[in-house]
Amino acid sequence: MEGTYGAATLLGPGDDAAVIAAPDGRTVISIDTQVQDQDFRLQWPSGYKTTGFDVGWKAAAQNLSDINAMGATATSLVVSLTLPPETPVGWVEDLADGLTSAIRELGAANCSVAGGDLGRGREISVTVAVLGTLDGGPAVLRSGAKPGDILALAGTAGHAAAGLALLESSVPLDSLGPDLRGLAELQCRPQPPLAAGPAARAAGATAMLDISDGMLRDGLRLAAASGVAVDLLPGPLERLKDVLLPAAELLHADARDWVLGGGEDHGLLATFPSGTLLPPGFTAIGSIQALGMNERPGVTIAGRSADTGGWDHFAH
Amino acid sequence: MEGTYGAATLLGPGDDAAVIAAPDGRTVISIDTQVQDQDFRLQWPSGYKTTGFDVGWKAAAQNLSDINAMGATATSLVVSLTLPPETPVGWVEDLADGLTSAIRELGAANCSVAGGDLGRGREISVTVAVLGTLDGGPAVLRSGAKPGDILALAGTAGHAAAGLALLESSVPLDSLGPDLRGLAELQCRPQPPLAAGPAARAAGATAMLDISDGMLRDGLRLAAASGVAVDLLPGPLERLKDVLLPAAELLHADARDWVLGGGEDHGLLATFPSGTLLPPGFTAIGSIQALGMNERPGVTIAGRSADTGGWDHFAH
Repeated sequence: MEGTYGAATLLGPGDDAAVIAAPDGRTVISIDTQVQDQDFRLQWPSGYKTTGFDVGWKAAAQNLSDINAMGATATSLVVSLTLPPETPVGWVEDLADGLTSAIRELGAANCSVAGGDLGRGREISVTVAVLGTLDGGPAVLRSGAKPGDILALAGTAGHAAAGLALLESSVPLDSLGPDLRGLAELQCRPQPPLAAGPAARAAGATAMLDISDGMLRDGLRLAAASGVAVDLLPGPLERLKDVLLPAAELLHADARDWVLGGGEDHGLLATFPSGTLLPPGFTAIGSIQALGMNERPGVTIAGRSADTGGWDHFAH
Repeated sequence: MEGTYGAATLLGPGDDAAVIAAPDGRTVISIDTQVQDQDFRLQWPSGYKTTGFDVGWKAAAQNLSDINAMGATATSLVVSLTLPPETPVGWVEDLADGLTSAIRELGAANCSVAGGDLGRGREISVTVAVLGTLDGGPAVLRSGAKPGDILALAGTAGHAAAGLALLESSVPLDSLGPDLRGLAELQCRPQPPLAAGPAARAAGATAMLDISDGMLRDGLRLAAASGVAVDLLPGPLERLKDVLLPAAELLHADARDWVLGGGEDHGLLATFPSGTLLPPGFTAIGSIQALGMNERPGVTIAGRSADTGGWDHFAH
């Protein structure tokens, strides 16, 4: 299997630039940076120490998710690393290992690290630019949702936010059971559903984006780009919430905030024409509504204001 | 003319990724980061203050040079900015202006800024990933130089290094004449010869790279990748040195060190088959020699050791 990875890389590291296949005459590109103490802590209050592997994995996963959100398949990553001179070499090797492991284990089978750049700075900073291919199909934009469309979610919601709260808490991570530790692991090593983006495009998704800032904020982006209203269903939100209740109880937190406001799971929010058989991995969580006269694009839950208080009315 | 910029950008900012044309089914990609106090100072000993415009220009120019060095033409930049919260908004606007001005004024006519990402950090860091097209031709690698080839230079050599020395000196920049100030400006806003890369490819260049770390170090890279020896001609080196003599005299420096060791002009070092009519912008500065028995790839000046002392033998 290993030989099949990186099939799109026509010229890899060693020259001034790499050359990547773009079989349909287009390439999809996104860029994203992770900075120490902004996007991760080297040492968390819960006692967990972020590994180079975590940082490499997350840098790859976040970028692969952006390609997924267009309905595309990743072909290549290039990486620019800024490191303080005292960074241990082993930490950097772990980072490279995390990058390639995320590519492989998340299923980006044609993708490889095609090049990079290394420099010094006062803080660790990892920038990844990712390329992808649409294989001859259309890109799925944020702006295509139509009234009557089904709104669907692929992947988890709120798990990474719950994981962040656990990492930031003073409860030792080591003292927790595997389910709760799994939430913290998801914060450090997100699991974007990379098969779901191309599947959504193949199924005729009208709009899509990845949830990087939470269902409410990203739902609003989709609503604004499409000129529609997004209405969420209380039932599916409850089910998303229920799996987070043990963490919420431990931390005296409200799991609804994580479901509606948590982003770093990198799930996909997509819309499909009414009657579409949803592709594997997607669950219906709402619908798209026409804007009323003088109404602005927004997100509601069963027609009511979508702040956490609004949801209360529907809690079982 | 303005409407013709960015012709390659099929989908620009606003979605999770951009879509860029790759007309021959391949895309060239490189990535590079500039970090405050490593790659530039906000305030130099000479009194000069680096502007946002300078940083944006240099970030674009360095990356455009990597595409040029492959014989390719740039199609798109994506930018990831890390900024301390206290960075003035005007400085960031200047940076965006510097990026687009460099693209336009350096002649990257099909290129535009297709997307980006903004985050916080303790120091200013600007990462650019650049895409390019080879328009159906081969990429010019470092590894193709053959014994008997002509070695040629496009662009300046040592000007940016002299400019750096002027910026770092205690002589007020304001007190200098326009020629010396021009060297400092070239350090802050490099002028890679973007027409020269594709022209070299069209003329049959066998190997090429951009001079980012100096003629000796980058010449050695070309020699090592190609398995050859690089021999420089004293005459052309003297002429490159002579224009730097006023700066060298002012700073009691050796202009030869700048010519042989200075990199940030982002000129091109290319090899062509013997008898090739060199494309516009290129000057012959040496030749490629076969390695002798047990000889390792290296750089010489008229067959002698290429350290600065070696050159002394040939100084007029």
